[in-house]
Amino acid sequence: MGETMGKLRRTHMCGNLRTDNIGEEVILMGWVQKRRDLGGLIFVDLRDTTGIVQIVFDKDVSKEAFDKADTIRSEYVLAVRGKVEKRQSVNKNIPTGEIEVFVEELKILDEAETPPIYIKDDDDVSEAMRLKYRYLDLRKPLMQRNLKIRHKTAKVVREFLDENNFVEIETPMLTKPTPEGARDYLVPSRVNPGKFYALPQSPQIMKQLLMVSGMDRYYQIVKCFRDEDLRANRQPEFTQIDLEMSFVDVDDVIELNEKLIYKIFKEIKGIEIDLPIKRMSYNEAMERYGTDKPDLRFGFELKNITDIVKNSQFKVFSGTIKNGGEVRGINIKGYADNFSRKDISKLENYARTYGAKGLAWIKINNDGISSPIAKFLGEEELNKIIERMDGEAGDLLLFVADKQSVVFDSLGHLRIEVAKQLDIIDEDDYKLVWVVDFPLFEYDEEEDRYVAKHHPFTHPVDEDIELLETEPEKVRAKAYDIVINGDEIGGGSIRINNSELQKRMFKALGFSMEEARNKFGFLLDAFKYGTPPHGGIAYGFDRLIMLLTGSDNIRDVIAFPKTQNATSLLTDAPSEVSIEQLEELHIKLDD
Amino acid sequence: MGETMGKLRRTHMCGNLRTDNIGEEVILMGWVQKRRDLGGLIFVDLRDTTGIVQIVFDKDVSKEAFDKADTIRSEYVLAVRGKVEKRQSVNKNIPTGEIEVFVEELKILDEAETPPIYIKDDDDVSEAMRLKYRYLDLRKPLMQRNLKIRHKTAKVVREFLDENNFVEIETPMLTKPTPEGARDYLVPSRVNPGKFYALPQSPQIMKQLLMVSGMDRYYQIVKCFRDEDLRANRQPEFTQIDLEMSFVDVDDVIELNEKLIYKIFKEIKGIEIDLPIKRMSYNEAMERYGTDKPDLRFGFELKNITDIVKNSQFKVFSGTIKNGGEVRGINIKGYADNFSRKDISKLENYARTYGAKGLAWIKINNDGISSPIAKFLGEEELNKIIERMDGEAGDLLLFVADKQSVVFDSLGHLRIEVAKQLDIIDEDDYKLVWVVDFPLFEYDEEEDRYVAKHHPFTHPVDEDIELLETEPEKVRAKAYDIVINGDEIGGGSIRINNSELQKRMFKALGFSMEEARNKFGFLLDAFKYGTPPHGGIAYGFDRLIMLLTGSDNIRDVIAFPKTQNATSLLTDAPSEVSIEQLEELHIKLDD
Repeated sequence: MGETMGKLRRTHMCGNLRTDNIGEEVILMGWVQKRRDLGGLIFVDLRDTTGIVQIVFDKDVSKEAFDKADTIRSEYVLAVRGKVEKRQSVNKNIPTGEIEVFVEELKILDEAETPPIYIKDDDDVSEAMRLKYRYLDLRKPLMQRNLKIRHKTAKVVREFLDENNFVEIETPMLTKPTPEGARDYLVPSRVNPGKFYALPQSPQIMKQLLMVSGMDRYYQIVKCFRDEDLRANRQPEFTQIDLEMSFVDVDDVIELNEKLIYKIFKEIKGIEIDLPIKRMSYNEAMERYGTDKPDLRFGFELKNITDIVKNSQFKVFSGTIKNGGEVRGINIKGYADNFSRKDISKLENYARTYGAKGLAWIKINNDGISSPIAKFLGEEELNKIIERMDGEAGDLLLFVADKQSVVFDSLGHLRIEVAKQLDIIDEDDYKLVWVVDFPLFEYDEEEDRYVAKHHPFTHPVDEDIELLETEPEKVRAKAYDIVINGDEIGGGSIRINNSELQKRMFKALGFSMEEARNKFGFLLDAFKYGTPPHGGIAYGFDRLIMLLTGSDNIRDVIAFPKTQNATSLLTDAPSEVSIEQLEELHIKLDD
Repeated sequence: MGETMGKLRRTHMCGNLRTDNIGEEVILMGWVQKRRDLGGLIFVDLRDTTGIVQIVFDKDVSKEAFDKADTIRSEYVLAVRGKVEKRQSVNKNIPTGEIEVFVEELKILDEAETPPIYIKDDDDVSEAMRLKYRYLDLRKPLMQRNLKIRHKTAKVVREFLDENNFVEIETPMLTKPTPEGARDYLVPSRVNPGKFYALPQSPQIMKQLLMVSGMDRYYQIVKCFRDEDLRANRQPEFTQIDLEMSFVDVDDVIELNEKLIYKIFKEIKGIEIDLPIKRMSYNEAMERYGTDKPDLRFGFELKNITDIVKNSQFKVFSGTIKNGGEVRGINIKGYADNFSRKDISKLENYARTYGAKGLAWIKINNDGISSPIAKFLGEEELNKIIERMDGEAGDLLLFVADKQSVVFDSLGHLRIEVAKQLDIIDEDDYKLVWVVDFPLFEYDEEEDRYVAKHHPFTHPVDEDIELLETEPEKVRAKAYDIVINGDEIGGGSIRINNSELQKRMFKALGFSMEEARNKFGFLLDAFKYGTPPHGGIAYGFDRLIMLLTGSDNIRDVIAFPKTQNATSLLTDAPSEVSIEQLEELHIKLDD
């Protein structure tokens, strides 16, 4: 039922043996990937975290080992001592394929039942099974690779920040519940009846306090928590690379972070990205891509035709505009033939999921156009539209008429969907862009007031400060997001370090100073005793690792993730607890 | 109310300027530590995270800067551009004391109210004030130094483990409540009504699963949580350096960790510790020091005189022994004259706090002995005792008669208390020892059964396995603690990787397999599919940093600690939350 290693101590890792090792005696330990019996020999693929090597049991080398080997099955754990020899039938598919190890001594360290999932990357078992048997799923080479890339990325980040005089400082996990924003996970306090800690949504306030403390440069790779309904690729606990710097403005933060991003791509992907990274204003990103997370790997940019069609006979266009809406389109350049009416109808359904009421289209053929809306448009109008859209034979033009947010959202997603359907996105291409000059405020229709687009400590762009009271919607923020291939990988801002300006900000947000004090008391107190200019950024570490590993499932880059129902299929968390435990915490279940 | 930096960008850090910089134009940013006006000049000590430099405002250099400087007060935040010059009156106390900077341009980046605590290490304000104004307290050089040592230690640990093929893997913070051991912090689940997550007390089970996963070598510097009544130097959340290795036995783990410890001491303290580190069995540690955390920096070792006095006329001794107790003593060698009867009486009171009913003593003078118990002892008995205690003129012998646990506990603490009173402990001396061969079980009198001294997965010493059913109290564990100067800095064990042995272990603990399955279900399942021999260790990172910084208060090595009441005086966490929030979590307050 399992032998001990005895005096055997591992000398080599399975995946590292090469022809250089021929003739050496080695001691290997690992799992049985596969066993084959052939010509009186037993061949075993032995696997450890570095890879696979073929070991051979031969009666003539060791009868004892051979006989014992006859009992082994998949996933048994072995320790073997043997000699590396040149392999007769070379296997070009694995790095160790030119050698094999003839076993002189075998210890079966543990037996194994037949595993409920296969230990191979192309196993197509359900994700539920993968998560339930995560300890087996993690044996797969791809998962081992993903976790190692995650480790290496953290290492590269730390090395870079260490070299740049950042100090890694741990901020508390048991924090104060926050007054607004996403939902907190709460933790009842036993020694303070009726009171609760919150798990941090981010270390934002603590890192600003560290700047007030004169720590100068802070970083942390840290768990954060949000109790939100989980969409795909969200987890209740997620990891941020969080950093903050004193005595900086936007360019300082961006320049340092570009070097960091350069280093990550260089060391993890072997790619040298171009510096400086392109910057694009929020407005430009919205106008051209319909989103503040533009994917620049392909075209199909948005064009505004509102001015052309505002008096159109086509009431779907002109009526929408009269009601305050607008009309924009994208040109699927050169791919008109790829989309039948039925395909376009499917695209329309896709656009509807983002709120569009319909999708108007014009196909430009060599011999004229086909379009269900052409008959409503005058010839001049049609020509102007085609000109604006840069339309030529072979193009498919798609239009949405609606209020601006719907136009952006639906066309922004549509251009990506079309590119995916056409399979024209180069997965090995990385297009990076800083999106800057975000609006400082956005109007919250529910609350009928302006709210901070980032957070209420975000510094306005200097020349816009005078507009705070008069035209708040025009005030831009010293905020920046780094967007890679359409994903926001990180974002941050310069913070207000001046009480006067902070007061004006709160006023613009409709907070009295008393409300502000209730919400942010200790931070406002801290700002009274000399606050340096400061700013920072936080990266979504899980998302970054997805990008670097080419994973499209966040659960493939986290060792022990939760489902979309926020449960662990492995440990069965969350679970019920005893009445006594609840009593100690001064709470009871609400029934 | 605060200027912007404008085009000024920091070129140097305050504390780094030296005579080499004389003649250079520099731009510095920092806080006003002190301002003095002297001979028509304004002198300011400007402070940043690297230290202090003197800057000088001289009308003749810049009238504008001089006039502005006239308004500045302590803790104002400044940006200055100026020229480094040789200082007339050298200050040998600070590294920048040979230079000063004549300011050509000044920007006041933020003003400051008078801070409620002084920004200097020897401020003797209450700890409550320090914690409330933590962002000011952290400005003190000592706190900045402590956090930097913490950072650097984490860095050294990571570098070492990276080089040794460990993979840093994050384990979940939202885990399954544990069935026994210390109290969990619980987190109610919103989407799973009536169910709770627990914050991890340690990643123990997850790291064992990672070994089952074939990750081979895992580490993490990670927050852990225990909701226990806080003693001094305990925090509700604390940090562990946690690691686990596959295909290892005790010596492998110890040897690797000795190299790690060596590197930490070398890089942080500049001390080269001797390797291998001494090992001492649990039994020897208890016999000689009365504790499994022996401080080896001084003597006063325990000696057993039970055999000598078991038939003594002195009934306090012989009576105790008859009732199953024992008598041991320590020799305060050469310090008899330091302790008056009154002093010894105080020591007795100290011993009582550890359960001792009294403290017998013998003082050996040049001209005989003085002792309140001598008259009850025969001369031969007395001589034997003195011989056993290695007693000579000038020695003070102290004895406790009680059941073994009280004798060990009281004498163990007493020898430390005496050494502290005598001030003979060299704070720059580091005595390291591995305590090994712990008993696998300890008897729990309340539960009237054996419980695992470490945890139920700890592997027994191989040659003791046969005693599991017959003499469990004699079975030693493959467990090891690293003890430095009387503090347990880390501990770990080799784990059972064999189902058969695990079953015998559970049986010895009095669990049915069904109970075991309820408690540890998914781990036992995992062990069915091929488990490598594995073991690891966890270090108390806060405690290690206390040792390396020479702090005797855990709150001095944590940026934002909690009080013994588990509250944050800074943020006021924990705090009340709204009824709506509780309703969402399906709980209500227990009133």
